Amino acid sequence: MGYNNFLYLLNDALEKNHLELALASVKTFRAADVADLLMQLPLENSKNLLIHLPDRVDVFSFLPPEYQAELAKIIPRNILAEIIGEMSSDKRVDVYKRLDTNQQNALLPALAQAEREDIRQLASYVEGTAGAIMSSEYATLKSNMTVSEAITMLRREAPDTETIYFAYVLNDERKLLGVISLKELILAAEEQSIGSIMTTDILFAKVDDDQDEVAKIIARYDLLALPIVDQYGIMIGIVTYDDAMDVASEEATEDFLKVGAVNGSSRFSLKTAPLFQLYKKRVYWLVILVFGSLLSGIGIAHYEDIIAEHIVLVFFLPLLVGSGGNAGSQSSTLMVRALATGDVQFKDWFYLLGRETLVALGLGVTMAVAVSLLGFYRGDELVALVLALSMTGIVLLGCLIGMSLPFILNKLGLDPASASAPLVTSICDAMGVLVYLFIASLILF
Amino acid sequence: MGYNNFLYLLNDALEKNHLELALASVKTFRAADVADLLMQLPLENSKNLLIHLPDRVDVFSFLPPEYQAELAKIIPRNILAEIIGEMSSDKRVDVYKRLDTNQQNALLPALAQAEREDIRQLASYVEGTAGAIMSSEYATLKSNMTVSEAITMLRREAPDTETIYFAYVLNDERKLLGVISLKELILAAEEQSIGSIMTTDILFAKVDDDQDEVAKIIARYDLLALPIVDQYGIMIGIVTYDDAMDVASEEATEDFLKVGAVNGSSRFSLKTAPLFQLYKKRVYWLVILVFGSLLSGIGIAHYEDIIAEHIVLVFFLPLLVGSGGNAGSQSSTLMVRALATGDVQFKDWFYLLGRETLVALGLGVTMAVAVSLLGFYRGDELVALVLALSMTGIVLLGCLIGMSLPFILNKLGLDPASASAPLVTSICDAMGVLVYLFIASLILF
Repeated sequence: MGYNNFLYLLNDALEKNHLELALASVKTFRAADVADLLMQLPLENSKNLLIHLPDRVDVFSFLPPEYQAELAKIIPRNILAEIIGEMSSDKRVDVYKRLDTNQQNALLPALAQAEREDIRQLASYVEGTAGAIMSSEYATLKSNMTVSEAITMLRREAPDTETIYFAYVLNDERKLLGVISLKELILAAEEQSIGSIMTTDILFAKVDDDQDEVAKIIARYDLLALPIVDQYGIMIGIVTYDDAMDVASEEATEDFLKVGAVNGSSRFSLKTAPLFQLYKKRVYWLVILVFGSLLSGIGIAHYEDIIAEHIVLVFFLPLLVGSGGNAGSQSSTLMVRALATGDVQFKDWFYLLGRETLVALGLGVTMAVAVSLLGFYRGDELVALVLALSMTGIVLLGCLIGMSLPFILNKLGLDPASASAPLVTSICDAMGVLVYLFIASLILF
Repeated sequence: MGYNNFLYLLNDALEKNHLELALASVKTFRAADVADLLMQLPLENSKNLLIHLPDRVDVFSFLPPEYQAELAKIIPRNILAEIIGEMSSDKRVDVYKRLDTNQQNALLPALAQAEREDIRQLASYVEGTAGAIMSSEYATLKSNMTVSEAITMLRREAPDTETIYFAYVLNDERKLLGVISLKELILAAEEQSIGSIMTTDILFAKVDDDQDEVAKIIARYDLLALPIVDQYGIMIGIVTYDDAMDVASEEATEDFLKVGAVNGSSRFSLKTAPLFQLYKKRVYWLVILVFGSLLSGIGIAHYEDIIAEHIVLVFFLPLLVGSGGNAGSQSSTLMVRALATGDVQFKDWFYLLGRETLVALGLGVTMAVAVSLLGFYRGDELVALVLALSMTGIVLLGCLIGMSLPFILNKLGLDPASASAPLVTSICDAMGVLVYLFIASLILF
C-alpha cells in the first residue's frame, strides 16, 4: 500500500469518525512521521487525530511553527493549554509568539503560573538572538554537593530538563561557576564534591548574541549544549545541539536563497507558502536588477554606430558578457560561503584578491584562446584580437567584482550574501558591454 | 595585544627554541583554538609545538584532514603512532586515508593490532557512505544485565567509547536488539534488567547508506547517535550528532557552490587551496556555459536584419534576456534548496509547476508594465507592445525552465544542484533572445 493510499484511508476513517481505526493505523509511527502525516490531512481532521494521540505533545512539537499556530486556533483551549504546558520551553514560546493577541490572552490564564511567566520571559527576547532559541529548562547543581547527592538531584530534575547529560553549577546568585557532565559524575567517586571535579573554564554566550554565533560555537567545540547568561552573568538558559543544527540549516537556506536573489527568511515551505508571499520574495530583486540591465543597454546605445557597422560584434556579445557574469558569480559564491562557514574573514580580503587575480588571469586566458579561434572563424584576425583582449579583461574584471562585492556590502552594513549571482551577473554584464565595445572601438576604427 | 602580534611572538619563541615559553603562552587556549593557531605557523614550528602539547591528541583531532596529513609526514613515527592510536576511530581513519602508501605502511606496524585492524576495516568503506564517517567505538550491553551491572560496565568502557549517553544492546551474534540511554539507566531501579527497559524499536542505517541520508535522520529525529549495521544486520559502528552536523554543513557548501557553478567537493579552503585547484573547479563550467551563450549568439545572428533595422531593440536586449535569467535563477535556487532540505520531493513537481506558473505570470506582468513604459519613452507604442509581450513570455519561460531543470537533471541521474544560476541564466538567455526577436519580427514587420 503506497503512502498516498494510506493517507486516503486514514483521512476516510477520520471523516467517518472511526477514531479508533485511525489511531491504530498510526500506532507504530514515530512522532516526527506522524507530524508529517498530519500536515497532509485537512486541518479539521488533523486536529481530531492529534488531540487523541497518546504522544500528542511530541507530535505537536515536531510540527513547523506556522502549522502549530494554525492548529492552535482550533484546538479546544483546555487541551491546548495541556499540550503547551508539557512542551519544552523553547518550542512552546515559538507557538505562543505566532498566536494573535486575543489567542495569547485566552491561552495564558489556562497555564500554570510558572509556565505563564516562563513564556512571557522567553517571548521578550529579540528574534535571531540566543534568547529566542534557548530553553529555560536545564539541570543545576551546587558546588558543595557530593557526587552521589548530585546524581540523586539529577534523577529528580530529569523530567523537567531538556538534558541531564550536562549540569550547571551555580552560586546563590545563580552565577555560573562550573559545568559537569553526567559522564564525569558516573566516573567520579561518590563522596567527591562537585566543586572539586567540575570544569570551571566554561564556554557560554550572552542572551543577545546572534543565534548564528551560538550555533557556530556549538559546532566548533562539539558541544551538546551552551549555557546562556544575561548582562549580569546570571544563567538564564541553554541552547542545545539540535537547536544549533536547525539554526545552521536555516542560515544555510537563507544564504542559499539570497545568492539566488530570493528575499527574506528561510522559514517557509515552497509547497505551502501563499503564492503572493513567493511573489513578494522575488519581485523586489527582479525590479532592482532591471537597473543593472539598463546600464548594459545604455552602454550598447552609446556604441550604436560601431554595432551597426560591425554587426558580427552582436553575435559575440552574449558570449563575452555572459562569461564575465559567470566567472563573477563563481567568485562571489565562493566568497559568500567561505565567509559564512568562517573559512575566511574580512581581514583576508586583500590577500584573497591577489590570489583571485592569478586564478582569474588563468581562466581569462583559457577563455580568450577558445573565443578568439571562434572569432577568427566568423570574422577576421582583428575581430579575434578584440575578442581575446575583451575576454581576458572581462573575466578578470568579473572575478574581482564578484570577490569584492560581498566585502563592500559588509562595509555598508549589509549582508554579504546579498551579493547574489543575479546581482553580480547584472553588474558584470554592464561592465562587460563597456569593456568589449570600448576595445572594439579602439581596434576596429 | 592583537592576534597577529601574538602569532608573531609565538612563532619567534618557536624559532628560537623557547619551547617552554611557547607552551605557556597557549596554555589557557582550547584545543579548537590552538588548532587554528597551528595552521598559521610555518609547518615545522607547528609540528614542534604540537608534539609537546599536553592535549596534542585533541588539538590534532581539530585540524582539517589535509593539514593533519601534512603534519603526519614530518611527525616522528613513534609519536605519530601514539597520537593516531589515541584519536577517535572515525577521525584517525580520515588521516590514514590521506597518507600515501609508503607512509601508511610505515605507520601500521607502529600501532597496536586492534587499532591496525580497525583502521584497515574503516578505510575500506566508500567515501560518502555511512561507513566512511562512522566510529567503531560505542558502548554495548547485554539484555540480561541488571541496571547496576550496566552502569558498572559503562564506567569501565567510558574511556574507549565516543559516548556513554547511549548504549546498544546486542545478542551473541552482535545483532542489534535494543538501545538504552544513560538517562533511562539513571532513572531506572538498580535491579531491573536491561532487556525489560530498553527501547526495541530502533532507528539505524546501513553501512553503505549515503552519509547525507544518515545526517538527515539524525537531524529529523533529534538523535545523539545512530547505529550502523552491515548487510547481515550486525552492528559495526555509530555516527554521532557532531559528525552529522559536519556532513550537513559540507553538503550545504557543496550545493551552494554548485549553484554558483563551482565544481567538486567542499573539503577545501578558499584561503589555502592551491591556485590550480581553484582554477580547475571553475574552468569546467565556464567553458560548458560558452555553448549556452553561443546559442544566444546564433539567435541574434538569425535576426540580424531586424536588429540592423531597429537598432533600439539592442538597447532592450540585456534587460529582457537578463530578467528571464534572473527569474529562472530564483526558481532553480528555490527548488534546489527545497529538494535538499526535503521540503519538496520529486513527485511534487507537477503541482509545483502549476503554482510556479501563477507566480511567474505575476512577476512577468509586473516587469512587463515597467519595461513597456520605458519602451514607449525610447521608442513607440509598437515597441512598447513588443517589450510587454516579450517580457511576460520570457519571465514565464525562465521560471518554468528554472523549476524544471533540477528535475530533469535528476531524471538523467545527475545532481539537481548542478542546475546552477549561471547554467539556468545561459539557457534562459538563449530562449529569451529567440522569444524577443521572434515577437519583434512578428509585430515590427
